[in-house]
Amino acid sequence: MAKEKKLVEEITSMDVDFAQWYTDVVKKAELTDYTSVKGCMVIKPAGYAIWENIQHELDRRFKETGVENVYLPMFIPEGLLQKEKDHVEGFAPEVAWVTHGGMEQLQERLCVRPTSETLFCDFYAKEIQSYRDLPKVYNQWCSVVRWEKTTRPFLRSREFLWQEGHTAHATAEEAEARTQQMLNVYADFCEEVLAIPVIRGRKTDKEKFAGAEATYTIESLMHDGKALQSGTSHNFGDGFARAFGIQYTAKDNTLQYVHQTSWGMTTRMIGAIIMVHGDNSGLVLPPRIAPVQVMVIPIAQHKEGVLDKAYAIKSDLLKAGFKVKVDDSDKSPGWKFSEQEMKGIPVRIEIGPKDIEANQAVIVRRDTREKIVVSLDNLSEKLTEVLDTMQHDMLERARAHRDAHTYDALNYEEFVKTINEKPGFVRAMWCGDQACEDKVKEDTTATARCMPFKQEKLSDVCVCCGKPAKAMVYWGKAY
Amino acid sequence: MAKEKKLVEEITSMDVDFAQWYTDVVKKAELTDYTSVKGCMVIKPAGYAIWENIQHELDRRFKETGVENVYLPMFIPEGLLQKEKDHVEGFAPEVAWVTHGGMEQLQERLCVRPTSETLFCDFYAKEIQSYRDLPKVYNQWCSVVRWEKTTRPFLRSREFLWQEGHTAHATAEEAEARTQQMLNVYADFCEEVLAIPVIRGRKTDKEKFAGAEATYTIESLMHDGKALQSGTSHNFGDGFARAFGIQYTAKDNTLQYVHQTSWGMTTRMIGAIIMVHGDNSGLVLPPRIAPVQVMVIPIAQHKEGVLDKAYAIKSDLLKAGFKVKVDDSDKSPGWKFSEQEMKGIPVRIEIGPKDIEANQAVIVRRDTREKIVVSLDNLSEKLTEVLDTMQHDMLERARAHRDAHTYDALNYEEFVKTINEKPGFVRAMWCGDQACEDKVKEDTTATARCMPFKQEKLSDVCVCCGKPAKAMVYWGKAY
Repeated sequence: MAKEKKLVEEITSMDVDFAQWYTDVVKKAELTDYTSVKGCMVIKPAGYAIWENIQHELDRRFKETGVENVYLPMFIPEGLLQKEKDHVEGFAPEVAWVTHGGMEQLQERLCVRPTSETLFCDFYAKEIQSYRDLPKVYNQWCSVVRWEKTTRPFLRSREFLWQEGHTAHATAEEAEARTQQMLNVYADFCEEVLAIPVIRGRKTDKEKFAGAEATYTIESLMHDGKALQSGTSHNFGDGFARAFGIQYTAKDNTLQYVHQTSWGMTTRMIGAIIMVHGDNSGLVLPPRIAPVQVMVIPIAQHKEGVLDKAYAIKSDLLKAGFKVKVDDSDKSPGWKFSEQEMKGIPVRIEIGPKDIEANQAVIVRRDTREKIVVSLDNLSEKLTEVLDTMQHDMLERARAHRDAHTYDALNYEEFVKTINEKPGFVRAMWCGDQACEDKVKEDTTATARCMPFKQEKLSDVCVCCGKPAKAMVYWGKAY
Repeated sequence: MAKEKKLVEEITSMDVDFAQWYTDVVKKAELTDYTSVKGCMVIKPAGYAIWENIQHELDRRFKETGVENVYLPMFIPEGLLQKEKDHVEGFAPEVAWVTHGGMEQLQERLCVRPTSETLFCDFYAKEIQSYRDLPKVYNQWCSVVRWEKTTRPFLRSREFLWQEGHTAHATAEEAEARTQQMLNVYADFCEEVLAIPVIRGRKTDKEKFAGAEATYTIESLMHDGKALQSGTSHNFGDGFARAFGIQYTAKDNTLQYVHQTSWGMTTRMIGAIIMVHGDNSGLVLPPRIAPVQVMVIPIAQHKEGVLDKAYAIKSDLLKAGFKVKVDDSDKSPGWKFSEQEMKGIPVRIEIGPKDIEANQAVIVRRDTREKIVVSLDNLSEKLTEVLDTMQHDMLERARAHRDAHTYDALNYEEFVKTINEKPGFVRAMWCGDQACEDKVKEDTTATARCMPFKQEKLSDVCVCCGKPAKAMVYWGKAY
């Protein structure tokens, strides 16, 4: 019992120290480990399996919209990176440089891709000649490198995994439609699969991607009230096309520049899952993304028939399409419960001699700890229902938490007080001037998370400078 | 007609210039393209889709044997790479070095992983304490970099995609069993899915992996009679464990070193598919790996009902589980046939007004060009049969080609003459001495491909030096 208590105590309470709680959960749920390479992590099996499920779900949704996967080199020649002025300014300070290949010094340095706009442009400049070659709707799954100074598992690391879509279109309208389409794919994925509610909106010019005309974003709120940028989709207009000379002959025989987009989602979403759904016992995984949905835990497993029954349940549930394991290790049931909870497995099924006698089992939900006694005759049906309900409840709980931590501010005093004292989003009107964004950041460290697509008019004037307002903005302190 | 002829003529005949034929097929089937990064390629949608199918098939087979996927950093600190003497000697001359991160020079250079034994060892040294932590059976899908001087798409490039499995076991026996098990997974995959017959065997010490105790390999024969190493599985014994201090406490409380293996397969297999199955009209994809298995080509598509019928066929076949497309472009049927053949799509279905009237369609096999008239009422059943037969025939044809190009040599004169004049494998006895391997390479450029598991005693003496023979070896000229 002392041992079991210790197991749980190893996770710091999130109310005491949220950052330490996060680190503890990542470690105890065996998601990542540190390495000899500063700022880079190992993604362990339990963490990588979540990423595989994210990949599988996103990739299917991408392909339904006509996306094709490709693979481009991980290196970018320095000259290529420099072709688009804003882009190189945004990324050059944080890239890793390869200077030697084999025993020889390279004539031109290569950076390890921080993102691949320049490579895709170089590729498209060769591939695209005619309107018949359009659109190009390509995506790649790969790792990218950004030389961050301070790092945290999943949230910020020098190397991370992601997908990056890059498209080229004949018209500005088509590029804009694709930019929005992919943002909606991300938003639906987050809400339907990860049970994370998101705000869809547009970044301010200050916060947009280096080289983009417009950046759309989905923003989510973590349990501690901080904002997390969860996916972005950029409309480049013809800026990159002009820099890289990507032109096509239109139907009317005129030479036109293409219009481009890019959009990405990363392993950071695993961090979001932890910080939206986790609790003081560890990780809580939404059933639709969980690599293991059900852990069968035998009670008094030394007694005749108990283990056999546990295996039979596993076998039946596997056949019914659930992701199931049995914990038949020689640990105590209490210890096994704690482990299953730490790892965030959505439900456990407890089965002991008395249950077997009564032809029943006990389903325990990870999120609410609700115990549901169920006849073995309709275990599978009940399990479907419990997992569906849990998935739904997790989204609604997260939404309620976010809504309860979203405040409106009508004047600057109220704005600063709210953002400093109440963790969460603050909605306020903005004049569109970067000076006000800079002042807010200076005064509060908060940033404009997005101008939501669903605008409301809270007042006529900017919360900061009092000039006429142009948009309502979600402000927040970010990861 | 002139245009159609030109399309096909763009592929050099393989008998005229096999290397140029290969380059032409890669280009015309739209598998890869060159980039601004010397020695690195773009893998285009048609090429990447093959890799996705390879990944899907292999990953499933891996997981059935208990493999778990992880992700480790792409960088290796120089000091870590140097820990195992043979390994660093093998790889250091061909790695890319990162010397700067952001604006600063790194204190220690990082190489971009050429392979990840050292990273896995560093990881395992922390992860493994007790016999309870064993075995570890991890794999990662990633890209690796080797600074090759001369490169060819898929066969040899500075960056390529692969999977690398790395395992740690309590005993030497278990490590040996895993090494062989994974070689057999590769061999079965090649034969069952890629229709490429392989020779399973062991590498000589000269040819084994840097740091391995034993390297097992599968070797296949390309159409031009050259050998291609198609997958390798290494038993490291406890060499890396001693270099990295990977020890565990055994059940009897003694401290033991683990025994390790690694095994990999790469995008090179796409090159093998091309060179084993391709012909002078282009690529020929085995049905089980083809991203598109069936191209429906309407004849006289401007006539009423033809396109509708083509779409109806596509829809029925999709429902039946085939991977199908319709070529409804405004090109001529002959041009479409040529394109479908170039791209290696296993079968096309021709459907025109007369076919519709007769309630039939024509299935044309890509490999034999056999035309099969089939009633629309049992198109799906017939297609299953045709694709199965084609898959089977492709393997048997490749096997017959390999067997017809495998020769035995009993003395050195015969050996040199055969290996220089007859493209293919030459089987000959070997004394086990590296001096003879060196001499063969010097005299013929051929290398020992492997000592096959299925040994035969062709004579008592080494084909090169005449001393007592220890093993029969497959010799060949390699890619």
